[in-house]
Amino acid sequence: MIWRWLGFSKDSYRPEKDIGPYSNYRLAVRLELAQQPGVFAKLANLLAEEGASIGAVDMVSATKTKVVRDITLDTKSEEHAQRVLDRIDKLPDVKVLSASDRIFMLHLGGKIKMGSKFQITTRNTLSMAYTPGVGRVAQAIAKDPTLAYRFTSKSNSVAVVTDGSAILGLGDLGSAAALPVMEGKVMLFQQFAGIDAWPICLGTRDPEEIIRTIINIASGFGGINLEDISAPRCFEIERRLQAALDIPVMHDDQHGTAVVILACLLNALKVTNRRLEQTKVVVNGLGAAGTACCQLLIAAGVGEIKGCDKKGLVLDESMRVLRETNEHLTNFIHYDQPSGTLRDALKDADVLIGLSIGNILKAEDLNPMAPDAIVFALANPDPEISPEAASKKCRIYASGRSDYPNQSNNLLAFPGIFRGALDVRAKEINQPMKLAAARALASVIPEDALNEEYIIPSVFDKNVVPTIAKAVANAARESGIARRTPKHEEASV
Amino acid sequence: MIWRWLGFSKDSYRPEKDIGPYSNYRLAVRLELAQQPGVFAKLANLLAEEGASIGAVDMVSATKTKVVRDITLDTKSEEHAQRVLDRIDKLPDVKVLSASDRIFMLHLGGKIKMGSKFQITTRNTLSMAYTPGVGRVAQAIAKDPTLAYRFTSKSNSVAVVTDGSAILGLGDLGSAAALPVMEGKVMLFQQFAGIDAWPICLGTRDPEEIIRTIINIASGFGGINLEDISAPRCFEIERRLQAALDIPVMHDDQHGTAVVILACLLNALKVTNRRLEQTKVVVNGLGAAGTACCQLLIAAGVGEIKGCDKKGLVLDESMRVLRETNEHLTNFIHYDQPSGTLRDALKDADVLIGLSIGNILKAEDLNPMAPDAIVFALANPDPEISPEAASKKCRIYASGRSDYPNQSNNLLAFPGIFRGALDVRAKEINQPMKLAAARALASVIPEDALNEEYIIPSVFDKNVVPTIAKAVANAARESGIARRTPKHEEASV
Repeated sequence: MIWRWLGFSKDSYRPEKDIGPYSNYRLAVRLELAQQPGVFAKLANLLAEEGASIGAVDMVSATKTKVVRDITLDTKSEEHAQRVLDRIDKLPDVKVLSASDRIFMLHLGGKIKMGSKFQITTRNTLSMAYTPGVGRVAQAIAKDPTLAYRFTSKSNSVAVVTDGSAILGLGDLGSAAALPVMEGKVMLFQQFAGIDAWPICLGTRDPEEIIRTIINIASGFGGINLEDISAPRCFEIERRLQAALDIPVMHDDQHGTAVVILACLLNALKVTNRRLEQTKVVVNGLGAAGTACCQLLIAAGVGEIKGCDKKGLVLDESMRVLRETNEHLTNFIHYDQPSGTLRDALKDADVLIGLSIGNILKAEDLNPMAPDAIVFALANPDPEISPEAASKKCRIYASGRSDYPNQSNNLLAFPGIFRGALDVRAKEINQPMKLAAARALASVIPEDALNEEYIIPSVFDKNVVPTIAKAVANAARESGIARRTPKHEEASV
Repeated sequence: MIWRWLGFSKDSYRPEKDIGPYSNYRLAVRLELAQQPGVFAKLANLLAEEGASIGAVDMVSATKTKVVRDITLDTKSEEHAQRVLDRIDKLPDVKVLSASDRIFMLHLGGKIKMGSKFQITTRNTLSMAYTPGVGRVAQAIAKDPTLAYRFTSKSNSVAVVTDGSAILGLGDLGSAAALPVMEGKVMLFQQFAGIDAWPICLGTRDPEEIIRTIINIASGFGGINLEDISAPRCFEIERRLQAALDIPVMHDDQHGTAVVILACLLNALKVTNRRLEQTKVVVNGLGAAGTACCQLLIAAGVGEIKGCDKKGLVLDESMRVLRETNEHLTNFIHYDQPSGTLRDALKDADVLIGLSIGNILKAEDLNPMAPDAIVFALANPDPEISPEAASKKCRIYASGRSDYPNQSNNLLAFPGIFRGALDVRAKEINQPMKLAAARALASVIPEDALNEEYIIPSVFDKNVVPTIAKAVANAARESGIARRTPKHEEASV
């Protein structure tokens, strides 16, 4: 256990000072070394032997006999980090004073806080912000509930709700373990779209309980972002919540992912001179994301789509859900009986979209695909096929990895989608809004800048959120579910 | 409707600039007046006629023929404000350009927001705060759920939960209307105790649904503050939640009020040289606050206590609940059959605590009380007996009004109680912690500074929260429900 070494000091880790490539297991270690030749060399040898890279080395203090140094180390796992620390501590002239793991340091005390829009420092302000003055606002809202949008935080707030059943692809870790992930999501809402979100971690896996609980707490929020809820429960939960509530409900693992994939595909088709109506797509993996991806591609007008789950060309439970929620699906997908393998499906396919598990394909598996093949290998953390292998056979490759071009990341979609929906007080997030979001996201890259390695903008591209938000707001208005026309200056974030 | 005149401008109202005594119906009005003698006099006459006081008058701009002025007006009600504005607008040489109601202006867009503890501006930080890095934190918490206190916002967060059934004594206004009140509460948590609270407004009045919903969302919070839930449902909801959850659950309308009352009483007894064990108390009003007040006074060791509801000396539903939850009660309170009127009960009573409705007592009603009588008339917004009337008969008077001495306000208690409970990760807020809170609150005023008009400190007294928090934390430790010893520097806020 790495915890034994953690020395949580008040001068906590500053993320903005941490540069260089990302490592999941970077430690900051404070060591006391004897002040004599050869001690640091022994330490360096040990680290080399362990394959732990040394980053920055700083001197903290020195006397005639001792020197205290801070060093950063990149290790391979928690176990590896622990072993390295244990071995350092056993060196005769070296003592580990403290070690901190930068990721845990960053999370110490949580990542979010409540913020007040003004300070209550006088009796006058107290009397207006709280009793008795606030009573007038409460009574006005009781008479006209739409005033809640004007005089409370509802207009700009989203509940980020999870049951912890499918956390980041790590599985069901429980609702307490979901909180740091939801806090991260909430930060992204705030920093990328100016939305005030709050995490809600549910201590139940029962869909009926989840639905009832969310309905019960919904009135204070302007929208509901469902997160990391496992399939197939996520489909019914989302559908029934949206039917029951008059605020947008979106399961991001489904639709955020689908929007980004469609945006990637639209730009990839431009680069390879194809039309969507003539494109043959295979989707491998029919969980939450794969199902939503099929639905959105169908709504966008894709030529042919085949879905594969682990049994082959597809079938059964996942497809039953798909069929029930999208009647056009029967025109496009073979279902009910497995009709072959993934490799059969890939014959003459233009596009493979992987939303399954890592390392299931080799380069030669792509041989049957059409020329100029497009492969999106989106399994996390390892793609279905590595970029090195895929690049031998396909023309365009995208994955979820940040260390390769064309990173597909939900962060490209959900902030703008909710920003646009909240701006016009949309009652839901419907298919036209998702299509508009995908087209807007694709449009952020000018056509003459598109190329095989640049089909999707960076998450830090400042144009992404306002472009999507505007398109989503327009689509909501055009489809008649907007309840407000934003003022001109609000049209973008 | 006052809304017609609201000109919501971007240069919104600045509360800290609003000085002078508090008025619930203060308007800022922008007027265009003809630039000629006598026009302002006509306006001033009209306002005098209407009994609308003029506050500040500012010149905005002037031409040869027109002058634009901002004036602030104190009116008596929304209807009165509207009539005044309508009459002004009909004056021949005056035009109302816009009018804003300072309370609604202050609430525009809501009063709270989500805050991030750091910014995500680089891929490195994104990879640590969100996927993949956060996955390590989630996995660590899944293995050891107590780590949620260390690495998430749970350790410092409180859900402020209401069903909107008893909002500020205004009754059941619905869950949407409760939101501005809960936002105010949340601001007070943050500004007075550094606690990150979030409002949860429940769209159900069914106790079973309320209990289930709160249990389902509890894992992300370090405490639950129940607020403005009507009696008698509040008793069972609180009791069952506390039994089901391992975090503190407190219905502030009950216990916050009781703690402040006990603190007031302890100091009032010092001023009048009485001992609690020899003191006879009448509590009038046995709703949420009255019931909790009886329980806490009994726990503190009061000599005799009689409870009255509107039927007389008391009884039935409220007392049944009291009896079931506090077995010592039968020693002190007459119940089951009304045994007389409030006036009968007051015979030889040392203390009257009113938690009922306004203006039900006259000065002569206090005649039967013992000499040096103590009257706490806490009904809102109007006390059971006015200070003018009570002062003829009692030695010490307290009320909820901010314009008289001895204002009893829950804000004196709940921030410190939750601060103390969170600091030691208490599993609940038990009776010893409430007693400790009351004694600590009373102790904030040095004994030699106590007098008839100073038995309770100001809500803005900086010693209140740390003094209560420390006492509550100690009481939690002594009663064995603390799960953590705070570091020395955390002992106060």
